[in-house]
Amino acid sequence: MQNPPVSFPAREAVSQVRVLRRNGKGAVRVDDALATEEPLEIRIREGEGPARRLLVTMRTPGHDEDLAVGALYAEGLIESMDEVLSLERPPESRIDPDVERNVLLVSLALRAGGAREVPDRHGVASSACGVCGRRSIESVRGLGERSAGPDGGNGHRRVPAGVFAGLPGRLRQEQEVFLATGGLHAAGLFGEDGVPVVVREDVGRHNATDKVIGSVLRSGLGVPPVLLVSGRIGFEIAQKAARFGVAVLAAISAPTSLAVELAEATGLTLVGFLRDGGFNVYSHPERIAELDRG
Amino acid sequence: MQNPPVSFPAREAVSQVRVLRRNGKGAVRVDDALATEEPLEIRIREGEGPARRLLVTMRTPGHDEDLAVGALYAEGLIESMDEVLSLERPPESRIDPDVERNVLLVSLALRAGGAREVPDRHGVASSACGVCGRRSIESVRGLGERSAGPDGGNGHRRVPAGVFAGLPGRLRQEQEVFLATGGLHAAGLFGEDGVPVVVREDVGRHNATDKVIGSVLRSGLGVPPVLLVSGRIGFEIAQKAARFGVAVLAAISAPTSLAVELAEATGLTLVGFLRDGGFNVYSHPERIAELDRG
Repeated sequence: MQNPPVSFPAREAVSQVRVLRRNGKGAVRVDDALATEEPLEIRIREGEGPARRLLVTMRTPGHDEDLAVGALYAEGLIESMDEVLSLERPPESRIDPDVERNVLLVSLALRAGGAREVPDRHGVASSACGVCGRRSIESVRGLGERSAGPDGGNGHRRVPAGVFAGLPGRLRQEQEVFLATGGLHAAGLFGEDGVPVVVREDVGRHNATDKVIGSVLRSGLGVPPVLLVSGRIGFEIAQKAARFGVAVLAAISAPTSLAVELAEATGLTLVGFLRDGGFNVYSHPERIAELDRG
Repeated sequence: MQNPPVSFPAREAVSQVRVLRRNGKGAVRVDDALATEEPLEIRIREGEGPARRLLVTMRTPGHDEDLAVGALYAEGLIESMDEVLSLERPPESRIDPDVERNVLLVSLALRAGGAREVPDRHGVASSACGVCGRRSIESVRGLGERSAGPDGGNGHRRVPAGVFAGLPGRLRQEQEVFLATGGLHAAGLFGEDGVPVVVREDVGRHNATDKVIGSVLRSGLGVPPVLLVSGRIGFEIAQKAARFGVAVLAAISAPTSLAVELAEATGLTLVGFLRDGGFNVYSHPERIAELDRG
């Protein structure tokens, strides 16, 4: 940690501090680089209506627009960029540097059915959630996940088994801030050839996932077939992946029981413990080609 | 992962699944154990008032009462167990097994100042939060953190530097579900002799922290001096530790910039990268005794 790389990532994503480093021989004062964490407040405005606070998330600065679009998509507030009229810093950012840094205002087209319902504080996406995992899964399906939808999402695509072993290394190659700090999550979207489409880092796993999904939505690209996350897979990450419509959600670590149930129910292929050249398949193995070949 | 240990942890915290395990030689079907994830809905009732939903969190079942008390404490809704009249499953749990499993009703004593304000959906603890890290830290202080408070919390206690190297091993020893699944976070509270007071596991890092704090609050024990978490330290974990009043917050991995700022401002000693016998001190090293001794 003491030696940041020469090629340094975006300045604001990394914070420099002095620390006391203790090893077996005593304590020395050294420079250290930390992942920056700052709150981002996302506000939405519909048509000419007033701005409303949607949420505040603790995030690593950078790619805030991707994060906002990904979060709105995950919450079911937009279906595509067609509904996003503008992404801007709010007016008072001209006089308040904190607002300039940490508030984003998303202007949305009016929906035919009336004002969008802003979800309340659940940690899961819908007020129909809670109480039991089964109902949580139903509420996700209500958001319109695409994995197994009639238009197929990526449901028809197959990814060769041999591609997976190389993905963690590709993800790590793109993790500039992790290399400097040792302290960030990452998410990456990949083609079926294992080439990364976009990789994003964040102190929050959910933010990193929202950022890669938001990036692809903003770019107008198609949905890549594979989403890889650096840590574990819980319900909310699986929910984001299912709604976005990737074919395979993969992780370096373990999935939870509810993530597997959600994947099973929504037609998502779930891969875990992707390390040391091997991996586990928890749902829908039919989407991995040549799984039996050595 | 394929071989769960003979001494098995609480059944509901672990879920059994069949997976396809691929290695270099092909794919085989094996049994696997996953960390269970289910939503817990926490409701509160004040005096004879109606029950209100406070939040839903995705958690690993087990020690739900600890989690609820720790979450209410972190949100500033209680200062001690004196305000908690009862913890129970709500009445409809008699006819709905999902409610029985996944809803807890906390009855609270009326407060002199009127009904408690239930925080809205911010991901951080107060509606004064957001916009900038500095304001976030101020809002935490408003909750009445104890680290550097007038009653001292644990601010006066010192922990010998030699104790830290042994803590990760002690935490891991207590992690029954992790051993079975490889997929859980843990938090532990320790005495200055390095002996664990309580260790809890959860799919969510914040939940594991709420569980250990809730456990100590419920037991009526004093505040132990050291909180150790298995992963990284972000703002919210530091916030919980500062409010509870531990002397030292330690982690196996990196802290974020805002966690360090919060620790600095609230008198909390922050230790990171606790591994291989060494560690970094990010704030208030005066509370670690014999830091210079090899």
